[in-house]
Amino acid sequence: MKKIFLVIHLFLASSYLFAQEIENYIDFVNPLIGTQNMGHTFPGATAPFGMVQLSPETNQVPMYNAEGQYNKKTYEYCAGYQYGDSTIFGFAHTHMSGTGHADLGDFLIMPTTGELTLDPGTADQKQKGYHSSFRHETEKATPGYYEVVLDDYNIKAQLTATERVGYHKYTFNKTEEAHIILDLMSNIYNHDDKNVWSFVRVENDSTVVGYRQTHGWARTRYVYFAMRFSKPIKNYGHKKYDKPNYNGFYRKFDEEHNFPEMAGKQLRAYFDFDVQEGEAIDVKFALSAVSTEGAMLNLTTEVPGWGLDKVKHATQIKWNNELQKIDVKVANKAQKETFYTAMYHSMLSPVIYEDVDQKYRGLDQNIYTSDGFTNYTIFSLWDTYRALHPLFNLIQPERNNDMIKSMLAHQDQSIHHMLPIWSHYSNENWCMVGYHAVTVLADAVAKNTTDADLKRMLEASKATSTVRYFDGIGEYIDLGYVPEDKSNASVSKTLEYAYNDWCIAQLAKANGDDAVEEEYTLRSKYYKNVFDKEINYMRPKLSDGSWRDNFDPLDTHGQGFIEGNAWNYGLYVPHEVENMIEMMGGKDQFSQHLDKIFTTEIEDKYIEHHEDITRDGIIGNYVHGNEPGHHMPYLYNWTNDAWKTQERVRMILDTMYSNDIDGLCGNDDAGQMSAWYIFSSLGFYPVLPGSADYAIGSPLVEEATIQLDNGKTLSIVAKNQSSKNVYVKKVILNGKEVKGNTLNHNDLAQGGTLIFEMSKRPKKK
Amino acid sequence: MKKIFLVIHLFLASSYLFAQEIENYIDFVNPLIGTQNMGHTFPGATAPFGMVQLSPETNQVPMYNAEGQYNKKTYEYCAGYQYGDSTIFGFAHTHMSGTGHADLGDFLIMPTTGELTLDPGTADQKQKGYHSSFRHETEKATPGYYEVVLDDYNIKAQLTATERVGYHKYTFNKTEEAHIILDLMSNIYNHDDKNVWSFVRVENDSTVVGYRQTHGWARTRYVYFAMRFSKPIKNYGHKKYDKPNYNGFYRKFDEEHNFPEMAGKQLRAYFDFDVQEGEAIDVKFALSAVSTEGAMLNLTTEVPGWGLDKVKHATQIKWNNELQKIDVKVANKAQKETFYTAMYHSMLSPVIYEDVDQKYRGLDQNIYTSDGFTNYTIFSLWDTYRALHPLFNLIQPERNNDMIKSMLAHQDQSIHHMLPIWSHYSNENWCMVGYHAVTVLADAVAKNTTDADLKRMLEASKATSTVRYFDGIGEYIDLGYVPEDKSNASVSKTLEYAYNDWCIAQLAKANGDDAVEEEYTLRSKYYKNVFDKEINYMRPKLSDGSWRDNFDPLDTHGQGFIEGNAWNYGLYVPHEVENMIEMMGGKDQFSQHLDKIFTTEIEDKYIEHHEDITRDGIIGNYVHGNEPGHHMPYLYNWTNDAWKTQERVRMILDTMYSNDIDGLCGNDDAGQMSAWYIFSSLGFYPVLPGSADYAIGSPLVEEATIQLDNGKTLSIVAKNQSSKNVYVKKVILNGKEVKGNTLNHNDLAQGGTLIFEMSKRPKKK
Repeated sequence: MKKIFLVIHLFLASSYLFAQEIENYIDFVNPLIGTQNMGHTFPGATAPFGMVQLSPETNQVPMYNAEGQYNKKTYEYCAGYQYGDSTIFGFAHTHMSGTGHADLGDFLIMPTTGELTLDPGTADQKQKGYHSSFRHETEKATPGYYEVVLDDYNIKAQLTATERVGYHKYTFNKTEEAHIILDLMSNIYNHDDKNVWSFVRVENDSTVVGYRQTHGWARTRYVYFAMRFSKPIKNYGHKKYDKPNYNGFYRKFDEEHNFPEMAGKQLRAYFDFDVQEGEAIDVKFALSAVSTEGAMLNLTTEVPGWGLDKVKHATQIKWNNELQKIDVKVANKAQKETFYTAMYHSMLSPVIYEDVDQKYRGLDQNIYTSDGFTNYTIFSLWDTYRALHPLFNLIQPERNNDMIKSMLAHQDQSIHHMLPIWSHYSNENWCMVGYHAVTVLADAVAKNTTDADLKRMLEASKATSTVRYFDGIGEYIDLGYVPEDKSNASVSKTLEYAYNDWCIAQLAKANGDDAVEEEYTLRSKYYKNVFDKEINYMRPKLSDGSWRDNFDPLDTHGQGFIEGNAWNYGLYVPHEVENMIEMMGGKDQFSQHLDKIFTTEIEDKYIEHHEDITRDGIIGNYVHGNEPGHHMPYLYNWTNDAWKTQERVRMILDTMYSNDIDGLCGNDDAGQMSAWYIFSSLGFYPVLPGSADYAIGSPLVEEATIQLDNGKTLSIVAKNQSSKNVYVKKVILNGKEVKGNTLNHNDLAQGGTLIFEMSKRPKKK
Repeated sequence: MKKIFLVIHLFLASSYLFAQEIENYIDFVNPLIGTQNMGHTFPGATAPFGMVQLSPETNQVPMYNAEGQYNKKTYEYCAGYQYGDSTIFGFAHTHMSGTGHADLGDFLIMPTTGELTLDPGTADQKQKGYHSSFRHETEKATPGYYEVVLDDYNIKAQLTATERVGYHKYTFNKTEEAHIILDLMSNIYNHDDKNVWSFVRVENDSTVVGYRQTHGWARTRYVYFAMRFSKPIKNYGHKKYDKPNYNGFYRKFDEEHNFPEMAGKQLRAYFDFDVQEGEAIDVKFALSAVSTEGAMLNLTTEVPGWGLDKVKHATQIKWNNELQKIDVKVANKAQKETFYTAMYHSMLSPVIYEDVDQKYRGLDQNIYTSDGFTNYTIFSLWDTYRALHPLFNLIQPERNNDMIKSMLAHQDQSIHHMLPIWSHYSNENWCMVGYHAVTVLADAVAKNTTDADLKRMLEASKATSTVRYFDGIGEYIDLGYVPEDKSNASVSKTLEYAYNDWCIAQLAKANGDDAVEEEYTLRSKYYKNVFDKEINYMRPKLSDGSWRDNFDPLDTHGQGFIEGNAWNYGLYVPHEVENMIEMMGGKDQFSQHLDKIFTTEIEDKYIEHHEDITRDGIIGNYVHGNEPGHHMPYLYNWTNDAWKTQERVRMILDTMYSNDIDGLCGNDDAGQMSAWYIFSSLGFYPVLPGSADYAIGSPLVEEATIQLDNGKTLSIVAKNQSSKNVYVKKVILNGKEVKGNTLNHNDLAQGGTLIFEMSKRPKKK
């Protein structure tokens, strides 16, 4: 095991006041994991939860072809990078990790030499455009650092980042004229109308500021920048690709050359430098959602000087500090890399969304100052309420508390008075169903990790759950279910609202508000209203109370479920699993149903055309590559066959994750897939966020030590652990045997030792 | 003479602490003057120098036809209104007064009844669209108030305004459903790409906020609003006219009806109300350049309650307070209306450009707080440095001082480090030639009306005059003239730069900086370099030093002059009139040349296709309807024929201005035409801004009293005044006869009495 001495900088957390010998966890992280196929991860440089994700774009995928048809490749490039590519178009400053929708890709920087071209070209035309070929042999990707050689120009590109600043170092290997292109047209989710406006000012011989406004997945989004070169610009200019109606400038100036003001819808700028062989040009590039002034403040505060190594070093220490929160002993290096890369992927979002002076842009596009919290965005809540936020409650409670306060601020600013559904850079993109922010609130209350005002959390949750025009809520309130003829995916919505309402009831209980608790407890039973006893499935119901005809419980298309079917998504009643099992015929019948799900191969016709359900992530009819089933392997715990949970979980850990570039079986979904891996590896999983309960699974680790926020540590020991010994014989917490299949978070949070006694024989009843 | 008692509100200026009997000057203002033909004034409601100009749009002129050709009518509708029209499309909140270029027209409000249509229709289709016919009989226009009946709907519209808030009152004459349309697509300077983005939130049942970003004459402009209705909205909605690529909303909502969030490039919103016969709905509509938060603050601060009369009354008191600064006795009501309407038109711009909390948007799009001044925009300086800013130094010195500080802030924020050329709502539109802000600075220094830092003013002026890439300045510095082959209108530019440089020399002198004074005094002589002795005209020179061929001193097209020719614009050396006259052959020859200019009818071919030179404003070859000649009638003062100045000035006052709707002979040009009238009516004119000198003309007034800012008053008496007695026999200031043809501002600023002894006989030498 490689040990290193880290020289600790004074500005780091107080826990690092002295140089100490610690494990270099970043060596076990491979950011390239998930970059092949549909993981949608990015390999570039970022700080933990940082606002900047500086990463290569390996294709420029137009969202529509000339005939206006959607280009399916758009989905492959959600994070800008596909491992199979051999072309780099440049390095952009914003990327989402693992999301199931494309966006961002702001401010593409590309260094070139020789004759200037501002045309990016296309990947299939090797000799045309500014793009360059590259080889993976020259590529290094590690937390906070990315390196690659741009072969067409023989330029070595090195990237690192602080929370708000991307740091580029380009080393040129010939004495010649170099260009650094700032392509303001380059986009992920790349359609003609995405760029709404661009604005650039060359402030002096080495400083450039500006912004752009986009209309992408976020409808009204502003992102500002401040860029500084380590060397004075020799010449610069830009070209505009829209047809500007404004001619004030053309009368008086050569606006395109060495003119310090650029604006328009579509433009690309360039900056020329003379370089000697071996010379490097460094670029600092800060972002802000507030203003160019904010970006400049971020730049000068976070990276006041020059030197890539210093920035990289400081960021990698931050990464190591985050990664060491769970120290694991596993069977092999592959598992260790899988684990720590999952840890890494769980800390790429939500992202910090405020300037160093705490200013941020609110949902109403006004500028706010975060008071008493750090503001975050990117809440992909339909995904992340399941295991990512519960994981934060274990190892990032402070950040999770800030995220809750960010959600409450969002609710304050929302014209709908709603907590976020999918918080997206001062926008709500409304993606997916349910109002799962209430679950994140309830989970933190259950686990005592938030100091947000209890009453405010309850009021915000009530306001969210009573917006009648939102996604069938009006009908849900009136009828007790969402009717399929009024709102599609009606069963998914009904099930999730019911569960969310149970969470609101828990918030009401914490508030001592009996009336509201009762009201929402009643609503939490509405799952029963979409259960068809005749066929023993959850089933879409119409507003007249009749069941919808032509129902196929195996089809994932238009059967009342979103990205799922009645077989799998239909089992979503986490707050009343026992009642659900009873309703569905009892423990044994339910256990058999689960078996069928895991063993009956799904037919292609049932899942074709689904971007989020791919063969990679499927076991029978169980779709691990997507979220609705993530709790399902643990449901055996409520039958007489808890051993099957243990078996299935270990099987999923082994087969659905790896340390390969295609090591994710589906979108990482902003960290949810990774959080599932982390919990399950430790031996438990939050089947019911909003409660303090964890369902016991089967640990993958031999040992683990979790650094808790309260200064305590929780040690996990899996005795007699092996790849065959996947069954849990006994669980002992601090010397006391745990009865049943449940652990309590608040017990674990006291620290101590959690022992799993493993066996190769299932404990059958 | 009508006298009224004004009940004075406590929040007014301290000079009005008690009710007092004063003349109601607003009765002599007719905002409709200049609304026929090319005056480009607007008839609507505004406060003195207010940010809101709430005024009707009588046409919706698309800037380009289907073939992409420019629609000449665009120019007619610079201020949105043409008296000849009989259709109103609604009331927009921003209008420029008298400018020679179209823009603004933000946030059109139109009340309708019956079946809702969001299509404006066209003026020639009476039955289609939401527009309405109107008759001038129902129209009342007075400072701060406008009223009209929308005949198609029988709705009485009444409008008033504070500095930042427009106040609408719509009275309905039938019991029915009423609609108030907010058309965010309506524009002056109306092309498809003008709207960059629109954003609207319905905050509650009577409050709406939002903004739009436009790409008009200002390249990157943001304007925010907050709107409040006096009655709860029954229903509302919007329609989008672009093709949005964003579909997040459509999946979940009926976005178009009662959905409180709207965004896109092109949209129109409506708000429905049930009204009873005789019922009125009031609308308060505040603007901000900063944020919706700023607009809301403006709204609640400036108009906290309801009631049109109260707002109107307060604004009209402000107007009266401004208008009373010059009390005149003239021959008849027509002259009095012409005079006070000129006074009114001189106070419509520059406009206050900051929120009540002093926040404003800077040129770099960052938000600033004005520190120690009020920020203004709309500096149409090629027009207004001539007489408008000198007029401000006489009756608005505090505001002029704030304007200077606004210009210095502009220079600080300018990426070119330039003072404004044409300051346009956080943008520079670069209109016209010269850098006349330096003149405004020098004029205020010469007249002791500014407390801005002398050194900063000099540095800002130097920086402005040395931007080599701006409009031929590099060549001007190198060659001593702007070469026509490098930069068109080269003679105009050379003459104006030379004059501006003389102003900078005066600033240097005030700073005690001899070297800079010498440098710029040298530059101020460069006018000589474009004088061709052979033909005795200013003439375009090429960069090789040769004169340009094919030169016609009478043609106004491409002969080295902008909006002028060598005959008239060629006489622009205000700082060295004597030298110029000497150079051009001496006093008598020059006097004859001036005579020829005023008496030789210009041929049509020389002025055709000129938007700014129209027959209305022409006397011979003298073009009063445009600025380059405004000093010319006074040039006789430097010959032996000062009596001709007196004669011509009176003739121009009589023939080029009137109290009719077509009473302006050309664009009022942000008040410059009106300021010429005011000065000339008083008997003197600032031929050389940057000095304290006024050239004596011939007063039109019988008596005038000017309230000076220092509490003193200057009384002007024209003895023996009549329409025949246009010649000045003697001028006596405070008992001492004035020798020569010049008055000094600083003498006048001491107050006292200025007597003109008039005669019907010219005083010939």
